[in-house]
Amino acid sequence: MDTVRRIEWVLAEALGEMDDASAPRSLAAAIKHAVFPGGARIRPRLCLAVAMSCGDDCPPLSNAVAAALELMHCASLVHDDLPCFDNAETRRGQPSVHKAFGERLAVLAGDALIVLAYQTLAAQIHHRPERAQALFRGLSQAVGMPAGIVAGQAWESESVVDLRQYQRAKTGALFAAASALGAASAGQPLQAWEPLGIWLGEAYQVADDIRDVAADAAELGKPVGQDLCHGRPSAVTTLGLSAALERFEQLMSQALASIPDCRGAKALKGLLRAESQRLIPSHIHKVAVAEPARQSPRHEPIVSSN
Amino acid sequence: MDTVRRIEWVLAEALGEMDDASAPRSLAAAIKHAVFPGGARIRPRLCLAVAMSCGDDCPPLSNAVAAALELMHCASLVHDDLPCFDNAETRRGQPSVHKAFGERLAVLAGDALIVLAYQTLAAQIHHRPERAQALFRGLSQAVGMPAGIVAGQAWESESVVDLRQYQRAKTGALFAAASALGAASAGQPLQAWEPLGIWLGEAYQVADDIRDVAADAAELGKPVGQDLCHGRPSAVTTLGLSAALERFEQLMSQALASIPDCRGAKALKGLLRAESQRLIPSHIHKVAVAEPARQSPRHEPIVSSN
Repeated sequence: MDTVRRIEWVLAEALGEMDDASAPRSLAAAIKHAVFPGGARIRPRLCLAVAMSCGDDCPPLSNAVAAALELMHCASLVHDDLPCFDNAETRRGQPSVHKAFGERLAVLAGDALIVLAYQTLAAQIHHRPERAQALFRGLSQAVGMPAGIVAGQAWESESVVDLRQYQRAKTGALFAAASALGAASAGQPLQAWEPLGIWLGEAYQVADDIRDVAADAAELGKPVGQDLCHGRPSAVTTLGLSAALERFEQLMSQALASIPDCRGAKALKGLLRAESQRLIPSHIHKVAVAEPARQSPRHEPIVSSN
Repeated sequence: MDTVRRIEWVLAEALGEMDDASAPRSLAAAIKHAVFPGGARIRPRLCLAVAMSCGDDCPPLSNAVAAALELMHCASLVHDDLPCFDNAETRRGQPSVHKAFGERLAVLAGDALIVLAYQTLAAQIHHRPERAQALFRGLSQAVGMPAGIVAGQAWESESVVDLRQYQRAKTGALFAAASALGAASAGQPLQAWEPLGIWLGEAYQVADDIRDVAADAAELGKPVGQDLCHGRPSAVTTLGLSAALERFEQLMSQALASIPDCRGAKALKGLLRAESQRLIPSHIHKVAVAEPARQSPRHEPIVSSN
């Protein structure tokens, strides 16, 4: 089974209890709506790629970890879309959960998805109980306080914000966990794999910013130019397109260089290079070459939308 | 250390990371506000009482489970109080979290508390990794879908509701888990201990309904007569006061009878009898004696507010 099918399968399995006759119907439907159809499933793909590089000695466990990461990501999207935050009308090409099911069920769907993430992991932990602490702690740190994605979202309510800390928590934490927990699910020490997720998380953000100005809408699946339109900070508005592309290449190089020695290192590097091409296709590089050079600070914090 | 001090201590420990300098301040304050000062801490008290009856061979683990149960309860109160649900202005004698910190931080505080519950358990699971599956699954089932407290809250959005199923999920599930996970934290099979939590959960609900009409406000710590005032279903309005008191006694007897054989059974029964006296003091029984007898159906589903 290829990785994409493997992820959809484990997510469908994780949501199996939504069909339980004793479950409240509307909440079950809201939860399914939040998970299917999915986005790029980047976090579980990264998790499984790292697990496979580390030998993937317990696929039921790595599957569960990959699903848990995606369920946490879906939970954060549902709550970020709520009227009190972004009040988003659409998500992944369909109405957001609160638009389709109301605010109450959106709050509850987010809560239930967080619990389901742990539940999915708990269901497989008997295969390797000695890995329980690393996996449950790692997942919690990526989501909760003081530096997970919930903390990241909370920085938006603070009057003084360290932008890098905000960005690391809001997006980087779950990317770092995807990489680190992929390794931990295969019994490898997780610390060595965190940098890969951190570099990749930042690279994806910069790529998002670049695609927002240089891709066409059909390619992106959503309107382009949204960062400028909403006055959101972006690597492109801060650095200019050429320097942002350079920054992206630099982050991908750092990601590649951070991969620890392991038997699957070569295959993983190949995967990341292909992903890099997918994120920034060559025609975008051509756009940048045509753009006039721009002087801009290179080492300012880079913040982008997710 | 007595149980009450033990619970406050483990909760304070669990919230230790809120003082981390890297945490967003407002969310850290909102989380503390949701947990302190506490209510009666009934769920962690039940959990620890059962753990002690079962030998409590790993206090760091039973402490973590007790704290996790209370943190889940606090999370549910924060989200239930949100404007889209009860829009409650006060909770435990102080402004509700969304009144004190705004809706955004209330949503995030609830999310962070759910994660913190798991994080607290994960931090101690290395003492007995072989108990990880029972504890993490049990905690998740009590909170998530299809029959935990989040599912219970979701029944309020359904057009057709099985009242007993609603009540069991909304309140009973976390009570059942408090009892069952107390046993599991001490290495005992959890199924045998679930009925105790289920009977007690129902007994507490009926006691709440009785106290709402028969206690005085100072004793209750909140205004009396709220069920009638808000048209909420209550054991007293359904059965009458005398029959509700009889039902309470019956549920407490069933709870006592359900306690499995264990070396601490006698002490636990003593504790429950004292708790029964605390819940329904003798002067309330006297009020009921003065009340005229009333004919009412005895076996209808009983629903009460929490």
